[in-house]
Amino acid sequence: MDFKYGNPTPEIVFDAKNLSGKPIEKIERKIMDLNMIFKDKGASETMDQNQIVYEVDCYFPVENDTEGGLFFGITRIKPGKVGDEYFMTKGHFHSNRDRGEFYWGLEGEGQLLLMDEKRRARTEVIKKGSVHYIPGYIAHRVVNTGDTELSFGACWPSDAGHDYASIEEKGFSIRIVQKNGEQHIIKE
Amino acid sequence: MDFKYGNPTPEIVFDAKNLSGKPIEKIERKIMDLNMIFKDKGASETMDQNQIVYEVDCYFPVENDTEGGLFFGITRIKPGKVGDEYFMTKGHFHSNRDRGEFYWGLEGEGQLLLMDEKRRARTEVIKKGSVHYIPGYIAHRVVNTGDTELSFGACWPSDAGHDYASIEEKGFSIRIVQKNGEQHIIKE
Repeated sequence: MDFKYGNPTPEIVFDAKNLSGKPIEKIERKIMDLNMIFKDKGASETMDQNQIVYEVDCYFPVENDTEGGLFFGITRIKPGKVGDEYFMTKGHFHSNRDRGEFYWGLEGEGQLLLMDEKRRARTEVIKKGSVHYIPGYIAHRVVNTGDTELSFGACWPSDAGHDYASIEEKGFSIRIVQKNGEQHIIKE
Repeated sequence: MDFKYGNPTPEIVFDAKNLSGKPIEKIERKIMDLNMIFKDKGASETMDQNQIVYEVDCYFPVENDTEGGLFFGITRIKPGKVGDEYFMTKGHFHSNRDRGEFYWGLEGEGQLLLMDEKRRARTEVIKKGSVHYIPGYIAHRVVNTGDTELSFGACWPSDAGHDYASIEEKGFSIRIVQKNGEQHIIKE
């Protein structure tokens, strides 16, 4: 990083729900990437495999695994369902289990699922202005329970890492589904 | 943290520029707390010592010094000047020097001053939607150069700590002052 006087860095900006600027990385998760996380495999297989479920705009100002550094991102989950289960993120523990994370709601409405290593789970409503601390050792997933895009900001340590495998293998102990037009939390 | 099913944590929320909810801590910095940071000591001594220069709403979900945890805050700097120098934050290095931080602009407009340990400094414009990564080993201060309140969000590691003393002793190598109605960066 050049600290010469009057030398501004590339400008990173966000509007309500998009992060933009030179070093932003864009991640897309489609139905084809998420077949394993939804309960109803039959339903997901009949859907357009290229349909986007969620997108993440990330700002990684330091190398992955840097101790003491931070990353920043904005996630947008589309409205939609696979069978009766709402669109959601893959969900993960951090590879370095004691690393925490902040989420804050920007637009739309949904549920943040939190689960500890004993598979005890709970939920928090995520919506514009809500702030959520995700402690270390807690898996986290966001579910869009609304009819509009759900977006949220995130900040996490650059040495947190993502352990997606544990969730892909065993899932969360709760799911959020729609029954008779209303959201219900079901236990696995 | 209790992970019983369906037990939501106390809700923390923010509107455009205020953080609220049960465990939020509010910090006020008045002229009397900041006399040492402004260039014109004579001017600051004649001002109302109880005038608020800035306020910080903080969410500390874990103990101070916890490795891997994070803190979250919103700062509001009032518009105003001490002599010809704009209202600003105390500014600090992190006690654990390698810890980074994110700032993001919410309302108003100002300058983020960044200075390394060799006292090389630069500035970034902070305003609604701007995102700023402050790497480790970099002192940071925000200056409100506008006519309205400047607010910004922040997220930093819970084991970063604040070293205010280095800045109180030596200051930053640049200051932002108003001359003929315009902002100017001056070197110390």
